[in-house]
Amino acid sequence: MAISNKVRGFMEQGSWIRKMFEEGIALKQEYGEENVFDLSLGNPVMEPPQRFYEELKKISENPKNGMHRYMPNAGLFETRKAVAEGLLQETGIPFTAGNIIMTCGAGGALNVVMKTLLDPGQEFVIFAPFFVEYNFYADNHGGSCRVVPPDENFLPNMEALRTAINAKTKGVLINSPNNPSGVVYGAETLSKICEIIKDKEEEFGTEIYLISDEPYRKIIFDDLKYSYIFGYHPRTIVATSHSKDLALPGERIGYVAVNPYCPDSEELLDGLVFCNRTLGFVNAPALAQYLVAHLQTTTIDVGVYERKRNYLFKKLTGMGYSLVKPQGAFYMFPKSPIDDDIQFTEELKRNKVLVVPGSGFGLPGHFRISYCLDDSTIEGSFSGLEKAIAKYR
Amino acid sequence: MAISNKVRGFMEQGSWIRKMFEEGIALKQEYGEENVFDLSLGNPVMEPPQRFYEELKKISENPKNGMHRYMPNAGLFETRKAVAEGLLQETGIPFTAGNIIMTCGAGGALNVVMKTLLDPGQEFVIFAPFFVEYNFYADNHGGSCRVVPPDENFLPNMEALRTAINAKTKGVLINSPNNPSGVVYGAETLSKICEIIKDKEEEFGTEIYLISDEPYRKIIFDDLKYSYIFGYHPRTIVATSHSKDLALPGERIGYVAVNPYCPDSEELLDGLVFCNRTLGFVNAPALAQYLVAHLQTTTIDVGVYERKRNYLFKKLTGMGYSLVKPQGAFYMFPKSPIDDDIQFTEELKRNKVLVVPGSGFGLPGHFRISYCLDDSTIEGSFSGLEKAIAKYR
Repeated sequence: MAISNKVRGFMEQGSWIRKMFEEGIALKQEYGEENVFDLSLGNPVMEPPQRFYEELKKISENPKNGMHRYMPNAGLFETRKAVAEGLLQETGIPFTAGNIIMTCGAGGALNVVMKTLLDPGQEFVIFAPFFVEYNFYADNHGGSCRVVPPDENFLPNMEALRTAINAKTKGVLINSPNNPSGVVYGAETLSKICEIIKDKEEEFGTEIYLISDEPYRKIIFDDLKYSYIFGYHPRTIVATSHSKDLALPGERIGYVAVNPYCPDSEELLDGLVFCNRTLGFVNAPALAQYLVAHLQTTTIDVGVYERKRNYLFKKLTGMGYSLVKPQGAFYMFPKSPIDDDIQFTEELKRNKVLVVPGSGFGLPGHFRISYCLDDSTIEGSFSGLEKAIAKYR
Repeated sequence: MAISNKVRGFMEQGSWIRKMFEEGIALKQEYGEENVFDLSLGNPVMEPPQRFYEELKKISENPKNGMHRYMPNAGLFETRKAVAEGLLQETGIPFTAGNIIMTCGAGGALNVVMKTLLDPGQEFVIFAPFFVEYNFYADNHGGSCRVVPPDENFLPNMEALRTAINAKTKGVLINSPNNPSGVVYGAETLSKICEIIKDKEEEFGTEIYLISDEPYRKIIFDDLKYSYIFGYHPRTIVATSHSKDLALPGERIGYVAVNPYCPDSEELLDGLVFCNRTLGFVNAPALAQYLVAHLQTTTIDVGVYERKRNYLFKKLTGMGYSLVKPQGAFYMFPKSPIDDDIQFTEELKRNKVLVVPGSGFGLPGHFRISYCLDDSTIEGSFSGLEKAIAKYR
């Protein structure tokens, strides 16, 4: 009985995901990597932009004294300033370095935010389909998540949101563009969510934070303009990373941005810095901070993802899959042709295509396809996708 | 009432440390940086070894495809293999990559270890003087720390250790070379600690882990050979970083090493990987992992620290300070000439010397001097150190 009972329990609950993952590896070993089409991972095959390599070269050729030392737990001033200036430019809201805390990716950012906000038994409201780690993050800090189901088009069911918020609600967590659905929340959706939050704050006499997990913010299509949350509610916090927009997921670099108009923001920022330190992150990695300080207006080529989206969407609808056309991120979330998404995922696997069942995102009856992949992998999957739906047609 | 009550409480408890820190900044602003001698921080002024810069240059000149992507949560195989080979060479114990998990520094490593092991209400035994963050780390994961006082020479009081271990004890956490005392545990001390652990495991029918927090392992003097814990107890885990031995504290790169002879080690390693992921670390930063893979036999020039230790020790004893001669790390922990270490620290501050009172390490009546600093800072502090002790002589 080596480890914590709770951790053991979580691992057992998640063992079907692990089993799927291991079966995928076995499949690749049996049939060869090139004959198995793995659309299950959100690990971009795209490389970081050229500017990233240029900045890395500059650092390696002109190292500065002290650049690898401890720094303030909030991060390097020059990086926080660059992030703030980027946000100011995009939103017109007067961000300064003082509103920014650099973090170890969005996963680190969300843990720091939740630890800072949660007292035991408090809740975050999340929206299905959701990134399954949210549940672990809230639990890490003595809280839990309450799930709001979606409308047909994966936008929040607002009546369900009204019911979900209660006296224990500390925050509402959105994720737009959404993993796994690719849906992007527009101004109307944000406005409606915040109206409900305000009503509920009054009803319960509480303070409810709106947290936006937005690592896919810059990966949006169809000339959409991203709707920032800051104008809709004063208690707003962004938790994000450069994992996707700069294709740096392994470097663990992201940030928390607190709305300059947030009440009590001094205490909130102090708390975030304290939790960044005491959770053991201490500070975001220094090298990555130096690099992204110069890359705030740089993004990977989003057109590549848009082209892949168009291609895959056309193919899938052509085959008869029912799905909402995603406007961001690099996932699609089709309906499973049969109710049991895990069974359908198994059928796809028999056809050498690996995807993740919707059950892994709190929304059974669907499955997630990732398309941040080489075209050859995407194209290779078509035959299996076709055969699997044909079986149930 | 923005933030968690618990976090607010912790921040208020620690507010005297913050107050000291802020007063130090104010002092520097008033008298000029060069006239205030800050011996309070463990932030090495030494730069990383030349080999580090060579490796960084190699990476920037020959970037590999995929090197900034997600990776297994345990870390890069080549880095884990290099760490394992280094440990095998030093200890003769058959480490493999499978025993190693790369982490965001030792702070990340300790949080991952504690989360993996602790069930609510369980305890870690720690030894005063100790790194004050241990209390926060244990609390993060529903546990707490029980403190064993030292003998005269800052080695554990073994009778107190016997009393401290109880049915709720999940682990015993040591830190050698010690921050703040610089004391290094020899074979005899480790052997005695593990004998007591074994007795207590039998008495309570429990399993007790010995965790060694050893970021200063390679910074030892007087031709000492480091005593590794692995031979003394099967359930042993090392949590460490390259913050000090490669002078990379800002890069957040460290690892957990599990004794290959540890029972249930497969479940333990699975648990550690799961917690590394779900605490939001996901993986240690990729760039730093590539770099340290080639630096496992490289260390900053330890002779520099040994020379500083010799110089400072001679000076302090000459002034009449009573202290144990440290054999590692880069701190000294003299007795305060008066019982009230906070008052004495204030007196030093009036003389433009900043140090940390022993109360910040769970051992009042002492104060910590850091000497990982320029000689000019160390030498500049002598006059203030002399005046302060003279006042109470």
